[in-house]
Amino acid sequence: MEWKRINRRFERHPARTVIYSFALADFIGALLLWLPISHSKELSFIDALFTSTSAICVTGLTVANTALDFTKAGQFIILVLMQLGGLGVMTFSVFIALGIKQSLSFSSRLSLQESFLPHFTPEPRRLLLTIFVYTFTAEALIALGLLLCFLGQGLKIKNAFFQAVFHAVSAFCNAGFSTFKDGLIDFQKNYLVLMLITLAIFLGNVGFPIVYELLSLLKEKRRRLSLHFRLTVYTHIVLIVFGALAFLLFEKNGVLANFSWPLKIVTAVFHSVSARTAGFNSINIALFSEHSIYVFLILMVIGACPGSTGGGIKTTTLAVLSCTVWSRLRGFPQAVVFKRAIPVDQVGKAITLVFIYLLAIMVFHFFLTFTEPNVPFYKSKHEFLGALFEVVSALGTVGLSTGVTSQLNLWGKICIIMAMFIGRVGLLSLISFLSEVGHEPRPYKYPKERVMVG
Amino acid sequence: MEWKRINRRFERHPARTVIYSFALADFIGALLLWLPISHSKELSFIDALFTSTSAICVTGLTVANTALDFTKAGQFIILVLMQLGGLGVMTFSVFIALGIKQSLSFSSRLSLQESFLPHFTPEPRRLLLTIFVYTFTAEALIALGLLLCFLGQGLKIKNAFFQAVFHAVSAFCNAGFSTFKDGLIDFQKNYLVLMLITLAIFLGNVGFPIVYELLSLLKEKRRRLSLHFRLTVYTHIVLIVFGALAFLLFEKNGVLANFSWPLKIVTAVFHSVSARTAGFNSINIALFSEHSIYVFLILMVIGACPGSTGGGIKTTTLAVLSCTVWSRLRGFPQAVVFKRAIPVDQVGKAITLVFIYLLAIMVFHFFLTFTEPNVPFYKSKHEFLGALFEVVSALGTVGLSTGVTSQLNLWGKICIIMAMFIGRVGLLSLISFLSEVGHEPRPYKYPKERVMVG
Ligand SMILES: [K+]
Ligand SMILES: [K+]
Repeated sequence: MEWKRINRRFERHPARTVIYSFALADFIGALLLWLPISHSKELSFIDALFTSTSAICVTGLTVANTALDFTKAGQFIILVLMQLGGLGVMTFSVFIALGIKQSLSFSSRLSLQESFLPHFTPEPRRLLLTIFVYTFTAEALIALGLLLCFLGQGLKIKNAFFQAVFHAVSAFCNAGFSTFKDGLIDFQKNYLVLMLITLAIFLGNVGFPIVYELLSLLKEKRRRLSLHFRLTVYTHIVLIVFGALAFLLFEKNGVLANFSWPLKIVTAVFHSVSARTAGFNSINIALFSEHSIYVFLILMVIGACPGSTGGGIKTTTLAVLSCTVWSRLRGFPQAVVFKRAIPVDQVGKAITLVFIYLLAIMVFHFFLTFTEPNVPFYKSKHEFLGALFEVVSALGTVGLSTGVTSQLNLWGKICIIMAMFIGRVGLLSLISFLSEVGHEPRPYKYPKERVMVG
Repeated sequence: MEWKRINRRFERHPARTVIYSFALADFIGALLLWLPISHSKELSFIDALFTSTSAICVTGLTVANTALDFTKAGQFIILVLMQLGGLGVMTFSVFIALGIKQSLSFSSRLSLQESFLPHFTPEPRRLLLTIFVYTFTAEALIALGLLLCFLGQGLKIKNAFFQAVFHAVSAFCNAGFSTFKDGLIDFQKNYLVLMLITLAIFLGNVGFPIVYELLSLLKEKRRRLSLHFRLTVYTHIVLIVFGALAFLLFEKNGVLANFSWPLKIVTAVFHSVSARTAGFNSINIALFSEHSIYVFLILMVIGACPGSTGGGIKTTTLAVLSCTVWSRLRGFPQAVVFKRAIPVDQVGKAITLVFIYLLAIMVFHFFLTFTEPNVPFYKSKHEFLGALFEVVSALGTVGLSTGVTSQLNLWGKICIIMAMFIGRVGLLSLISFLSEVGHEPRPYKYPKERVMVG
């Protein structure tokens, strides 16, 4: 009964549910982290709130060192928050995509089932179970691998176990928190750890629909892949290769200069995967060249695949827009890809999302120029690009930083907290809202009229 | 006969015609400016090419001081190039918008004539004449006003006449060149000059279709305004007010601090109008706060109205995209404004334009980080924001600069020359290309398939 009631309610106001549940978890997390038992050093409430927001939104930006400033209890709270955040985001976004089915006409419902998520069972309970099983299985396997690595490095069993679980969850949830003093920089030459973390991030941000379709395919021995599958996987892989090649090229004589070739490749792939949107780094971001910083910015804005633990505008959104542009240049009046036409309302959704996302980047970046009124951002150390990087990282819930986070004053922290929350919860609400509206044809039609564009 | 042949040819390959004619004029201009008779100081060919490109593309970025480094002959060549460039851009863009009529089916042709340009005569010769008459009348009136101002300032009649003509043409064509040593900074407290220049810029970048429709309206005593008119004028005025208010707010205690209130307002409006895309400034851009720089960036990207002498993505492009987003949020599956629906192919055109424009900004900005390999842009004086400002200014053919232009090395100059040329000619070609394709329905239809966006 209760499940049905919640389900109905959620279907009616998914955006509201998302906002309330995240805000509540965020606040409780902040209170728990603020308790003296959680931290070993002095911790202001704003710093506790910052850490809690960063954990529940799986962003990974930190104003306090997770390894040094928090006790084991505090680290455990962060672990729980990350897991809740990651699972929450994945579940919410998959359910939002399915939730709309209820309010759709029979024909649209059919087309959704036929094409968009061809293998999804409509039974929400089983779906939820599958998501949980997938998450915990993946995390357990990665944790096991990491445990062996850490034991090999000479860590004591109890510590190695905690570190392995923490990093497996952090990587799978694309959170980017680390309980090592310098993050993964200590492991920058450890192939196995880097590759395991890369795999965990990939499993987390490739998106649940992809995994589900793949499993169904294996089970049912079907051949036809959905457009969603092909578009997502294609974009995802192209972006990973693009990022890795760019880092290899731009850091050949830079931060990768002293690495062996295999390690160069592993590190480049690691950072390319991690920038969308895990936020781990095995090299200090401030040491990268400005060209690589540029690539990081692009990857962070694009982000992960839909229905995953990651953030950003998402691979499919980029793909839909690129297809629209490419189709238009080829003379098609609408977006066409893989011999399929993308419905106009989805192109509108993609434009709306990107428009609002870029606007949010600008607004927060602009806000940040006000938080330290006497130091013009673009002339000082606290520089324009660093601030832009910080905002893009916070909105995309990536968690990489050129070092600006630790220098933020109170207003700067509030600004970034808001950016993290809006980048995660606001975006999810917007997507849910956009999925609800714009499907039903309006009762009246306006006459068409052309304008001169460009 | 010849006219008809050229007209036919132009209609078949407008993009090619645009590119060839601009490139030819650019090269001839560079050669003329390179002649010893044109310059009073040493001038390398790359600097001559830079100046010529800047003049023919009506950009206004300068590597040499127009007042000091060029002789009267050189200044006259720049004047002619500006006039050719401004007229060329206006004529080409209006003709491209009309040129497509020939290839359209009867129904689309009718709808174009009915709505988009309701008052245009289809006879190209008369249209061309009207454009020329409008241009030269406006320039003559502004020049007359400026002449009186300059005479009042104590300039000798011959010099005052040349300066008045030069600045009238430069302002109307949105070129932004000035033959005063420090540009308009010497006139920063001269209301009349600032207001005349503002008026000239406005007349130039409001776009010829608007002027034509207004004139027709007065003549025919019709009441109904086209959607194009309403959308353009509305966006144009909102942007001018937005920019002026932003500058007033952000420079209250900044560069406008010592100005009287009326002068504050005139200066703020002047810079708001000039940033889209004339590029005159009565205050050194480097002295503006970073908040204002941000506003400048936004205004420069948006640019002028279509069918004008200005650049940028254009007001209507922004309007169409904003309408799409706003309509989507309100639940309409397509873009709706003023009780009219904007056709889907035009939304696609707007997306394509903005997508490619933003990509161009990124590519050129990225290139610029390579031109001085030993100085990371975001750590040095030659900074990230300054470079971004420079590229946006060049691509939008604005011509404002925080001072980077004069510090460019050879590769930087080549990069900016390309940006100016592509921002002007490339954009015009792209628009012409997009106007040609995507109208005819394809003979086959692909099945629709949804993807999960966001
Ligand atoms: K993250
Ligand atoms: K200009």
